[in-house]
Amino acid sequence: MTENPLITLTTDFGLQDGYVGIIKGVIAGIAPHARMIDLNHQISPQNLYAGRFILLNAYQYFPQGTIHLAVIDPGVGGNRRGVAIRFAGGYLVGPDNGLFSGILSQYPALAAVNLNNPTYWRTAHPSTTFHGRDIFAAVAAHLAQGVPLEMLGEIIDPDSLQQLAIAPPVIGEDKITGQIQYIDIFGNLITNIPEYLLQGKKWSVQLVQKIIPAQNTYSDVPSGEIVAFIGSHGGLEIAINRGSAQKQLQLNNGDAIEVIINRQNVTALDQ
Amino acid sequence: MTENPLITLTTDFGLQDGYVGIIKGVIAGIAPHARMIDLNHQISPQNLYAGRFILLNAYQYFPQGTIHLAVIDPGVGGNRRGVAIRFAGGYLVGPDNGLFSGILSQYPALAAVNLNNPTYWRTAHPSTTFHGRDIFAAVAAHLAQGVPLEMLGEIIDPDSLQQLAIAPPVIGEDKITGQIQYIDIFGNLITNIPEYLLQGKKWSVQLVQKIIPAQNTYSDVPSGEIVAFIGSHGGLEIAINRGSAQKQLQLNNGDAIEVIINRQNVTALDQ
Amino acid sequence: MTENPLITLTTDFGLQDGYVGIIKGVIAGIAPHARMIDLNHQISPQNLYAGRFILLNAYQYFPQGTIHLAVIDPGVGGNRRGVAIRFAGGYLVGPDNGLFSGILSQYPALAAVNLNNPTYWRTAHPSTTFHGRDIFAAVAAHLAQGVPLEMLGEIIDPDSLQQLAIAPPVIGEDKITGQIQYIDIFGNLITNIPEYLLQGKKWSVQLVQKIIPAQNTYSDVPSGEIVAFIGSHGGLEIAINRGSAQKQLQLNNGDAIEVIINRQNVTALDQ
Repeated sequence: MTENPLITLTTDFGLQDGYVGIIKGVIAGIAPHARMIDLNHQISPQNLYAGRFILLNAYQYFPQGTIHLAVIDPGVGGNRRGVAIRFAGGYLVGPDNGLFSGILSQYPALAAVNLNNPTYWRTAHPSTTFHGRDIFAAVAAHLAQGVPLEMLGEIIDPDSLQQLAIAPPVIGEDKITGQIQYIDIFGNLITNIPEYLLQGKKWSVQLVQKIIPAQNTYSDVPSGEIVAFIGSHGGLEIAINRGSAQKQLQLNNGDAIEVIINRQNVTALDQ
Repeated sequence: MTENPLITLTTDFGLQDGYVGIIKGVIAGIAPHARMIDLNHQISPQNLYAGRFILLNAYQYFPQGTIHLAVIDPGVGGNRRGVAIRFAGGYLVGPDNGLFSGILSQYPALAAVNLNNPTYWRTAHPSTTFHGRDIFAAVAAHLAQGVPLEMLGEIIDPDSLQQLAIAPPVIGEDKITGQIQYIDIFGNLITNIPEYLLQGKKWSVQLVQKIIPAQNTYSDVPSGEIVAFIGSHGGLEIAINRGSAQKQLQLNNGDAIEVIINRQNVTALDQ
Repeated sequence: MTENPLITLTTDFGLQDGYVGIIKGVIAGIAPHARMIDLNHQISPQNLYAGRFILLNAYQYFPQGTIHLAVIDPGVGGNRRGVAIRFAGGYLVGPDNGLFSGILSQYPALAAVNLNNPTYWRTAHPSTTFHGRDIFAAVAAHLAQGVPLEMLGEIIDPDSLQQLAIAPPVIGEDKITGQIQYIDIFGNLITNIPEYLLQGKKWSVQLVQKIIPAQNTYSDVPSGEIVAFIGSHGGLEIAINRGSAQKQLQLNNGDAIEVIINRQNVTALDQ
């Protein structure tokens, strides 16, 4: 373990109760030198897809060995397993419900355990409703203290980990049909169409009767205009310069986005 | 003092102004090695009862010696005292208005001082409206640096500390009537009925004409159904599996909750 | 550089996406010993004036040498420069759009550079839309690691830095007309009238037909009453004791506030 191990926290607990602070108290008690960084606590309650997206888009910016603790846990106290996973970038700790399947689609699990060893829990009698406090926080802190993954519970087959699948974009002859997979606080529409499908090509986005040509950034268009570009997440993003694309275009998560490839931009009249 | 003293912060300052950051700047300037953990900054303005609840439910998860700084302070600049308190778990710093009376109902104050020694304030001329910055943050940081409690001001009788009383549940022959004392972000209804009143008994919750039997966790009932269990706060909680009990049941803080003890569950028809 | 350099973060990214966590990941990767303190991430999108105000009112509470990283960046990817600035209190890192002009109106820039040296970026191919992650976070972290300012890019004339001007109050014979420049979460109206204009004088605020005499703090008036005083920001503030002045008075940012100086308080009838 590193001198100052790093633990990120991702939950749907919000910040208006004391739950996040309590989790940090448990970690600080076990791993006094661990640094903690909040990734996101305002994921909409029990939204596993948003948690998967946040983790997938953040993990690569953290140093090697970082422990990512994530607790979006609608099945807490039921049959779902708690897991700790080693992957090339570090460790993942949380419920086995697909939260980590985005990261693991890029870097497969090197090892995984079912967190059934109470030695590394906060208490041998965990609450049935707050495993974040009683199991996951304690386990992440023990990992930060150098406890080997294999001590934390029974070794399991990484292939048995739950998956949350995202439908890939559909690639046609001269168009790609993807969908909006996340909308950020600015109202930017983030699609599931990755950069490599568009790289080196002339492309534009077709929105109803409007053609939005490929640009590089917000300010390539005047204020209030629609702009399409490869965003900081590494895929197609649709935005309004200094405005909210979500509000102005009335589009939502899951809505289809059509990209036209290698064709002259045409107006409705030309067709 | 420990090598890396820990200070928690609880305020009603919200996160959209700079107040919390400023308090942390003052602490970092005096106690460069202190670690700071946010407990909650989104308590509704001047809601002492919510602050008392958050502190009461969090303190036990922090390591011995932790300094809990809390600033919900409707009387700032007036007659109310500022206090620092030693208790079995560590230290409490803030206005003397009952914020700490929940913690102190479990672990009595071992010593208390009136913060009237300007040596340990940020400035000898504190603002009349922001003692969090000018007095409490500085005092918490000096405690973290090892200044003895007794140096911070005049010793006072712990019995003179303000109390915020919570009405206890009313215990009848075969029922207990408590009330909702906190509603969290998930809409879970947290009552003032502690686990020990229900332990080892057969119990259920009576909601209007509906009987809600005792369960262990959310997923013991189907999605959308009401569930009652001993929650992670150590008392009776009423929730909706994957939903909001507050919204669905239209119940609020202070509403009565009736628990039936040691009786067969009956349906409305049987009665 | 100090042993545990301190970096503050001010953005309009909000907390419901992963952007702030990602920035902290980049910093932690480069400067493992840096401490990070959030100043504010809930500035309304692209509101440079609010960012300027938050920074101006916070910087003086942080220890000497603190690095203030601020990313409110409507012009990202366009022509605006990225800058790092040394001033008496420490360092400023962010877009050159006037965010820092409040601080620099009190302590002028000692040196400034245009951040055009990719050696100290996260990547030589930064995203066009997230310089906070790819340039500013990395630069702040390298400053924290002791890289001299002058290495970070081409030295520029501090006089060339963008300004965001705030109209000063208008001083008449027996009145001062200022304006509301910020409204905090409590609904307190913070004006641009600094304490020194009122010091040693008898003053009151005229609101339509009402005269609000100078007081010291909220609780100098009964609950629900209007109160005017020199606030913790060092200027005239108008509030409602235990209420919201914004809601009750229906005033907003930019609205004029009139202060009457050295005159007997008069009622409408007397005039």
